Amino acid sequence: MSRVRVHNFSVSLDGYGTGEGQSLEAPFGHAGQRLHEWFFQTRTFHEMFGKPGGGAGVDDAVAGAWNAGIGAEIMGRNKFGPQRGPWQDHEWTGWWGSNPPFHTPVFVLTHHPRPSVEMEGGTTFHFLDATPQEALRRALEVAGDLDVRIGGGPSIVRDFLAADLIDQLHVVLVPIVLGRGERLWESLEGLEERFQVESVTTPSGVTHLTMTRP
Amino acid sequence: MSRVRVHNFSVSLDGYGTGEGQSLEAPFGHAGQRLHEWFFQTRTFHEMFGKPGGGAGVDDAVAGAWNAGIGAEIMGRNKFGPQRGPWQDHEWTGWWGSNPPFHTPVFVLTHHPRPSVEMEGGTTFHFLDATPQEALRRALEVAGDLDVRIGGGPSIVRDFLAADLIDQLHVVLVPIVLGRGERLWESLEGLEERFQVESVTTPSGVTHLTMTRP
Repeated sequence: MSRVRVHNFSVSLDGYGTGEGQSLEAPFGHAGQRLHEWFFQTRTFHEMFGKPGGGAGVDDAVAGAWNAGIGAEIMGRNKFGPQRGPWQDHEWTGWWGSNPPFHTPVFVLTHHPRPSVEMEGGTTFHFLDATPQEALRRALEVAGDLDVRIGGGPSIVRDFLAADLIDQLHVVLVPIVLGRGERLWESLEGLEERFQVESVTTPSGVTHLTMTRP
Repeated sequence: MSRVRVHNFSVSLDGYGTGEGQSLEAPFGHAGQRLHEWFFQTRTFHEMFGKPGGGAGVDDAVAGAWNAGIGAEIMGRNKFGPQRGPWQDHEWTGWWGSNPPFHTPVFVLTHHPRPSVEMEGGTTFHFLDATPQEALRRALEVAGDLDVRIGGGPSIVRDFLAADLIDQLHVVLVPIVLGRGERLWESLEGLEERFQVESVTTPSGVTHLTMTRP
């Protein structure tokens, strides 16, 4: 049975999954790279973009689980690009380069649908104006027996958690205070009661928190 | 030189240091005991109230540092009792019993000063309407060469952090989502830049976060 999974989702101590002021140059706004420095050090990150190097320790082991058995991803529009409102430029095909690291169908939730975009390497972006339930139904159809990843950002993960559609949530607690941005944990009181919870701090200083539906 | 320390301050994933709806029966409001279950299991907690038992593991080792070398505490009024506005009853001398576990002078910050209350065992409650700086000056005077503990709740710790008066901050990240209450991390953007930061998860599932001024 397919599961719905979140991987490598970094949040600050004050619960922000991204900073304020997203732009083409700053996908995470004023947070810069601070939420993901732990990830940039991993072999998994290097391999995502075809680069050599990166550590193979515990951060990497946990991070590396992100893609195994995944048949489709659902992401918010802000993970595709910084544009707001109607699309102005169909030539720009997202932040992820010509060969995005997903290699599966990716459903981009947006109030402004546009034609699907087929990339190199097996990634196809589909643009959907849909509820979490509808989007998940579409993703499960194409994923077959495989799992579906909810890729973020914060509001997408939050919406899927609020709808109780997530089976496995991996959040990385980064010991910084961002002060502003978009929060993950809003309106999720008692979330932990639905999950088996495990935490572990690694030498990079982050804490991997995993919530698994029993 | 005296240092200013915070110990055993528990917060939820969404950053709440206490729940909503404090009352005489519920010092932490709807949070109940959930923020402090890790602490209730420790030998340190048992000894604070003269009870036998409790674990002597890492949670206890970290928790047990709370009182060594402390010469005075500063706390918010809500840590003394749930009353709001002018004091109605001078007979009630706080949540902490006839022999409170502090055994030092304790400065209770309140807009409604009242006469000091001397308890058994060396604890005296003084009631101050003062800024963090003024309160700290008073506490340092009586602490002599010893340190001053900032005892909470969230707004008191936050105010002292905002004023850059804290040398050592021990926060316990508890993997629950409280949803509402009083937040610790508000308006503290970039806080971590002033400190050396260390995290460790223990078998109880909490993560001890220590920020130390270099």
